[in-house]
Amino acid sequence: MSLLKNDLFLRACKKLPVERTPVWIMRQAGRYLPEYRKIREKADFITMCKTPELAAAVTIQPVDIIGVDAAIIFSDILVIPEAMGMKFDMLESRGPVFHHPLRNSDDVKSLKKIEPETDLKYVLDAVALTKRELDGRVPLIGFAGSPWTLFTYMVEGKGSKNFSEVKKLIFNNPFMAHQVLDLLSDAVADYLSAKIEAGANAIQIFDTWGGILSQNNFEEFSLRYISKVISKVKRKEEPVIVFSKGVHFKLEEIASAGADVIGLDWTMDLGDIRKKIGGRVALQGNLDPTVLYANEDKIRNEVKKILQSYGEGSGHVFNLGHGILPDVDPENAKSLVNIVKEESKKYHLANAAG
Amino acid sequence: MSLLKNDLFLRACKKLPVERTPVWIMRQAGRYLPEYRKIREKADFITMCKTPELAAAVTIQPVDIIGVDAAIIFSDILVIPEAMGMKFDMLESRGPVFHHPLRNSDDVKSLKKIEPETDLKYVLDAVALTKRELDGRVPLIGFAGSPWTLFTYMVEGKGSKNFSEVKKLIFNNPFMAHQVLDLLSDAVADYLSAKIEAGANAIQIFDTWGGILSQNNFEEFSLRYISKVISKVKRKEEPVIVFSKGVHFKLEEIASAGADVIGLDWTMDLGDIRKKIGGRVALQGNLDPTVLYANEDKIRNEVKKILQSYGEGSGHVFNLGHGILPDVDPENAKSLVNIVKEESKKYHLANAAG
Repeated sequence: MSLLKNDLFLRACKKLPVERTPVWIMRQAGRYLPEYRKIREKADFITMCKTPELAAAVTIQPVDIIGVDAAIIFSDILVIPEAMGMKFDMLESRGPVFHHPLRNSDDVKSLKKIEPETDLKYVLDAVALTKRELDGRVPLIGFAGSPWTLFTYMVEGKGSKNFSEVKKLIFNNPFMAHQVLDLLSDAVADYLSAKIEAGANAIQIFDTWGGILSQNNFEEFSLRYISKVISKVKRKEEPVIVFSKGVHFKLEEIASAGADVIGLDWTMDLGDIRKKIGGRVALQGNLDPTVLYANEDKIRNEVKKILQSYGEGSGHVFNLGHGILPDVDPENAKSLVNIVKEESKKYHLANAAG
Repeated sequence: MSLLKNDLFLRACKKLPVERTPVWIMRQAGRYLPEYRKIREKADFITMCKTPELAAAVTIQPVDIIGVDAAIIFSDILVIPEAMGMKFDMLESRGPVFHHPLRNSDDVKSLKKIEPETDLKYVLDAVALTKRELDGRVPLIGFAGSPWTLFTYMVEGKGSKNFSEVKKLIFNNPFMAHQVLDLLSDAVADYLSAKIEAGANAIQIFDTWGGILSQNNFEEFSLRYISKVISKVKRKEEPVIVFSKGVHFKLEEIASAGADVIGLDWTMDLGDIRKKIGGRVALQGNLDPTVLYANEDKIRNEVKKILQSYGEGSGHVFNLGHGILPDVDPENAKSLVNIVKEESKKYHLANAAG
């Protein structure tokens, strides 16, 4: 950490004093950047994930072009199910489609226990290479899907509106669900530990589908396993960020599960949530991603509202409340980052003065 | 109201004493019923909406077959945009697809001010016919989309994942957005007034897409117009139910806007919300619709949790937290209704004793 030229992001995650609020953008290495699309034209999505040189190149692009305060390794949460033996195609129009979704106990038997160092070596190589190429400019974030979110994809087999298959499974065969979630928790923890070992300075757990569950079911099928992952990840001082989209109802419990930082979607009130749990965790977020469709004045107004809502002092990592959309003008992403850098200084004056 | 043989639903909406908790199911007149599919085979969805005899028949089916305590008129929220001149096709696979989505000020000029008594006479006829055929067995609910939800459909033109078009519009041309939302508020209020005039005993406003907005934007673009609709609807004692899916953050404000009943989705905690606003409004909901994929024991357990969460006394209308799914076994819907009827009695004993 001492070798980093810009460690604002890590300091904010630990609620240590900062001169300004750090900012990064979920899906910042993505289709909205022409430089990304140029690489994507030559290689499909999976090939990009599996080729460390390409993954490193697109991971670093937003640091150079957009000016973010952290890089996040280019990859996909579904590399874990794939390494466990579940093949899928990534279709431009429909997202991932698994060849054989997980539906019964026989399907479970065919799941392979993974060794990240061999089965997911390509990700670890990408992390190490990116770390070298970043050369301490900003920290590097590693990530994984939560066990529940991976399980949802594995059971549904493709994008879903009502998540009927995974809900049928948890209601009618909870034993099998818990068995697979347990397996996934070990896999996710080992994988995140290996990413830290390879050089990641922080990790984020994406619980994209936690919000489709009722509160009781969230505790039983998602939170329990997020908690297990956090307790098993081998780390020194690397913070853990948990982003549970739509989970407005269990933020205190996520803090109790050991998260250092909680990511908020744009429907949540940053200031209210700081009052409730800001003493225990840092908060990340939470601009509506569609605000980047607006002009610079509007973006500035909305950024100011969020900074004001959090208020003075450290413990806030600026981000969108969900991933950046593929048709956003990159100039607007640059504006966002610059505006956060300018407007946030005054909320850290006590620190600058001290 | 005095002519109703079963007015439990209306009494619960007004928090008047009841012997047991009333229950109905959003989308109860729908594809999960073989009796519905039999009619649907002979007529397309729009024809069913526009033919009072067919609309009345499917509206009454769940009263006869499932045993619900209220009927809700079979119709679609998009009849209003259609009457304003926006044509759409209803595709089985993709939902509604508008021929010309609303995108600029010229599109606004072509919107027609509607007269429900002529332009939507077929709905009013269906309400009147259903009322006659129900013959006082249970109350009849009329409904409409909220102005914001209708606007979202009109601008996106079809189903959407990120709602990019409508967000672009509110950020870049808020004047036009407010102009159309204002028009829609008048149309919705007039339409709901006409439905009450035709015999509806209660009305529900569906704000299906309120939850895609940040809290400030919800107040500006959705809540303001729900409030306008409620204040303009001509009614005597007919209660207004507002169901804003995903709007966990502004329930108190919806109560202040004049709703008599607030519908909750299944991610919300019924007991907590009763503590906060149960003194002012009744609450409707909120079983996860996918629980109907489970067996009867599981359904009973989940129903008991919800009844216990609300606790003793009136002011609770049992419902799902969203519409019933088309592949649910009708036997499970029947079980749900019977279980609510059985298990809820003990929460109203004080009343029975008095």
